Amino acid sequence: MKAAGRQRTGWRGARGARSASVEPTGHSLEGLYAELVAHKLIIPVGVPGIFGRGAVFERVLRRFAAVISGVAERDGAEVMVFPPTIDRRVLEKSEYLDSFPNLAGSVFSFVGDEAEHAALSEAVHAGASWEAWQRMTEVVLAPAACYPVYPTLSGTIPAGGRVVDTESWVFRHEPSPEPTRMQAFRVRELVRVGTPEEVLEWRQSWIERGVELLRTLGLDARSEVAADPFFGRGGRLLAANQREQQLKFEVRVPILSETEPTAVCSFNYHQDHFGKIFDIRLPSGAVAHTACLGFGLERCVMALFRTHGMEPAQWPTRVRDALAA
Amino acid sequence: MKAAGRQRTGWRGARGARSASVEPTGHSLEGLYAELVAHKLIIPVGVPGIFGRGAVFERVLRRFAAVISGVAERDGAEVMVFPPTIDRRVLEKSEYLDSFPNLAGSVFSFVGDEAEHAALSEAVHAGASWEAWQRMTEVVLAPAACYPVYPTLSGTIPAGGRVVDTESWVFRHEPSPEPTRMQAFRVRELVRVGTPEEVLEWRQSWIERGVELLRTLGLDARSEVAADPFFGRGGRLLAANQREQQLKFEVRVPILSETEPTAVCSFNYHQDHFGKIFDIRLPSGAVAHTACLGFGLERCVMALFRTHGMEPAQWPTRVRDALAA
Repeated sequence: MKAAGRQRTGWRGARGARSASVEPTGHSLEGLYAELVAHKLIIPVGVPGIFGRGAVFERVLRRFAAVISGVAERDGAEVMVFPPTIDRRVLEKSEYLDSFPNLAGSVFSFVGDEAEHAALSEAVHAGASWEAWQRMTEVVLAPAACYPVYPTLSGTIPAGGRVVDTESWVFRHEPSPEPTRMQAFRVRELVRVGTPEEVLEWRQSWIERGVELLRTLGLDARSEVAADPFFGRGGRLLAANQREQQLKFEVRVPILSETEPTAVCSFNYHQDHFGKIFDIRLPSGAVAHTACLGFGLERCVMALFRTHGMEPAQWPTRVRDALAA
Repeated sequence: MKAAGRQRTGWRGARGARSASVEPTGHSLEGLYAELVAHKLIIPVGVPGIFGRGAVFERVLRRFAAVISGVAERDGAEVMVFPPTIDRRVLEKSEYLDSFPNLAGSVFSFVGDEAEHAALSEAVHAGASWEAWQRMTEVVLAPAACYPVYPTLSGTIPAGGRVVDTESWVFRHEPSPEPTRMQAFRVRELVRVGTPEEVLEWRQSWIERGVELLRTLGLDARSEVAADPFFGRGGRLLAANQREQQLKFEVRVPILSETEPTAVCSFNYHQDHFGKIFDIRLPSGAVAHTACLGFGLERCVMALFRTHGMEPAQWPTRVRDALAA
């Protein structure tokens, strides 16, 4: 509640400094988008959920990511960075397409001769579909930053397990005018592999550290049990099961609504799902367990702007200090 | 030539510190890839041209990018960051598909009901193609970092023009075992828009600054007129024309070969191509001209490891100082 109090003060404080042409609109969807655009924090490109980030937005994002790095380093995390395009087989093996077929993005390309190229070009210039001249490639878009990490863990892990720190652009095919629901965004993700006890203890400690980290930045963060948006009617059962087993937690912060806060960080315990698929083993020979946590970097940054106002120079000193550290 | 001398010394100096299991192989293709993997600088994923980057590789890359930032800031460049997925219409309008249809990547996704999803899942589990259940979306992969910048410049630019500093993951569908020929990589790109004179003067100054920047880092950099790999037989004519008009320059550094150095930076003068397409105008009302330059960040980093050895701690002090600045 203290964090919420600071939030309102910071928000009002910054409001006075904004240009008069931007009307205050409270926690509404259109209000946030319009304000982010008016302050050049985001740059519309004509496709919902795909926008550019301005210099100030980006600087805050990198500083926020550096705060996570600081905590992850104390965990002895190994840094790995993967491209936004990953091996298609990882998506196929991991059963992502069973659960979220509608969100996945696959990469297609042209393979053909000059006659086919002429037909492709003609379609493009005529404003017609050129879909017919595209073939599936070996890569897909990463649906989460952790997916390319698991295959690199195959084999026997050392006693005590491993922690990996990764950041990646991820893709979700869900066009929306909501600024927090993006098709492309960056996730800073930590992956833990080890015994069930090691993994669960790590997850619990990170739920606490994640909430604390966000509260230090003046955000009204709360953790709760959550479930994924599985596809189709069968998905409801999967979600109920996930919730019952407490496999997923989210940390939520008010961005668009005080009463329905937005998830900015999620914690998933996969049990032996990835261990089995990618043959990751404990020194005992048993299948290793995994968990991951991901900070949605753009959402965290939007929460900061929403909470403290559109001008970082006017944010509370303790927030600016925490980001500069 | 002095740079080349330092290069060999640095390279040999580091060689002694490497694990004995990695055989020195000179400037060969397989040698570089094996060494980068052995030193955990890159992490193979099973698809050529798509690999992970280790902590040390990534740290060098970020420091190298910071050196470019330092120079760009003195130009008064505005920072913009775009996702790796861009508006499909930008690719269509810009005529990229006329010239490089084979390199472009488009994003497809599943749109269907539960019965179609069942068929998709069945295909995936059977190891069969699931291409038939994918439809073209509104986004494509960025073929170069500058593409999403041009539409944001539409309208009348201020006197003196503008400079934009951007960095993005780009995609080129050209699977290859060569470590320097990637399907996914990051390009740090600067875009200049203005009068023809402003744009050409800026490009010339950056060719000089680009070479100087790389030489300061001990790289044997040389600039030369170049041409793009246009598709098809007609492409040869386009390339000859581009070369004759000196529209493209590249800065090359020996990475895989002393005699055939690799392009690490390219400078393109588009004349009024993008200005016309995206209606970018000078204060006079005339169509603005544009130029861009892009540093292939992974190639620059590989050039550093190739030149100075696999252990940054053993790089020449002046190189480490230049990267730390």
